[in-house]
Amino acid sequence: MTDSKKTAPSLSLGTLYGVGVGPGDPELITIKALRLLKSAPVVAFPAGVQGRKGRAQDIISPWLNPDQVQLALKFPYTEDRQILTEAWKVASEEVWLHLQKGRDVVFASEGDVSFYSTFTYLAQTLQQLHPEASIQATPGVCSPLAAAAVLGIPLTIQAQRLAILPALQSVAHLETALSWADVVVLLKVSSVYPQVWSVLDKHQLLDHSYAVENATKPDQVIYADLSKRPRLQLPYFSLLVIQVRP
Amino acid sequence: MTDSKKTAPSLSLGTLYGVGVGPGDPELITIKALRLLKSAPVVAFPAGVQGRKGRAQDIISPWLNPDQVQLALKFPYTEDRQILTEAWKVASEEVWLHLQKGRDVVFASEGDVSFYSTFTYLAQTLQQLHPEASIQATPGVCSPLAAAAVLGIPLTIQAQRLAILPALQSVAHLETALSWADVVVLLKVSSVYPQVWSVLDKHQLLDHSYAVENATKPDQVIYADLSKRPRLQLPYFSLLVIQVRP
Repeated sequence: MTDSKKTAPSLSLGTLYGVGVGPGDPELITIKALRLLKSAPVVAFPAGVQGRKGRAQDIISPWLNPDQVQLALKFPYTEDRQILTEAWKVASEEVWLHLQKGRDVVFASEGDVSFYSTFTYLAQTLQQLHPEASIQATPGVCSPLAAAAVLGIPLTIQAQRLAILPALQSVAHLETALSWADVVVLLKVSSVYPQVWSVLDKHQLLDHSYAVENATKPDQVIYADLSKRPRLQLPYFSLLVIQVRP
Repeated sequence: MTDSKKTAPSLSLGTLYGVGVGPGDPELITIKALRLLKSAPVVAFPAGVQGRKGRAQDIISPWLNPDQVQLALKFPYTEDRQILTEAWKVASEEVWLHLQKGRDVVFASEGDVSFYSTFTYLAQTLQQLHPEASIQATPGVCSPLAAAAVLGIPLTIQAQRLAILPALQSVAHLETALSWADVVVLLKVSSVYPQVWSVLDKHQLLDHSYAVENATKPDQVIYADLSKRPRLQLPYFSLLVIQVRP
């Protein structure tokens, strides 16, 4: 009810809706996202790898019906800017083919649609290639909120300062975060876990640190104290919550 | 489906469910929160002030039915610790009366239930007074995610660092946040807006700063550039998104 178009849509064009579908439990999707998802003729999502379903696809599959066109868009796991840019263009043109014919496309993004989401690249590329495209975003529950809920702890209270960072490229920033924030969330921590553990050990924060794998999914795992876990083997989509000053 | 009890519940006790009901648009509640809300014999929420409905109450009112007991719990707007502690105790005992009789209570919290939420105080006080109480949290969409969606911008991408802080008591921390983070979200900014504006001006960030009032509500207001707005009169629940290094 509070939607507003970014650009005035021409009558014959469909709209691209980016919807956050939540952290994993299919019930943690919003009513609005579900309504858009069920009513769209075309549903898009990041393609899975190695023959497996993608994560967003997995979340939404209970809600889809066989009449809907399903578009698995390829977003390669690489940091090569040229490969990525090309993939975003290809995905945008696939979406555009439908929008042009007046069909709405709903793109499902795990978690929230504005929070480290593939949707950003799709939307920005589509807007560049076809400025007349109408694009709307519907927010969803992101993983740090899901992690706090399953841990049974508050993420933040009162005047607490919260820092969120993807650990993959910025272990160096962790020290600054720990000195500034009351609560720190580290995303994508798996590849740098041993270094992160050492920093937390130095600051005597291990017993105030939590690791969560696949929050709200059937394979969810929780580690509520990292003191004796210097070498956890975490999957890619794991996060740490560190209560620096509880 | 991934719920787990914090304490083994005795069979005769009801459970306190804290549910985040999203930022304002009643459609931005999750399926799970709605299911819990509709099926609970008792629905609780923070009481409104001055005869008005509370904000969570406002969001959930389209979903309630007349048979449900509605508990408006008083959480005074004060920083007096003694008054607050007493209010939390009174609220917890009101909830406990129902739990004791085997009735589930769903407490609705605007936004998310772990993110600067009144639910934390209710849950912690209840747990202290009645350790046998069973408490569960269901996450919701928090306001920064809603703000990004209605602004049509990503909140964060790639390796960006995000800092979130309530401005009310910590304007002094803003400078540090600006030096550390790529994106800064300031909550509850109304009372300190002129000082915040000066800091953003000094850092030449005003044209990369957004203010959002009541995101996703009918009275939503967006300011997409703060350069010419040194004296905005914002309501209490407004937030700023600052793209420090876009």
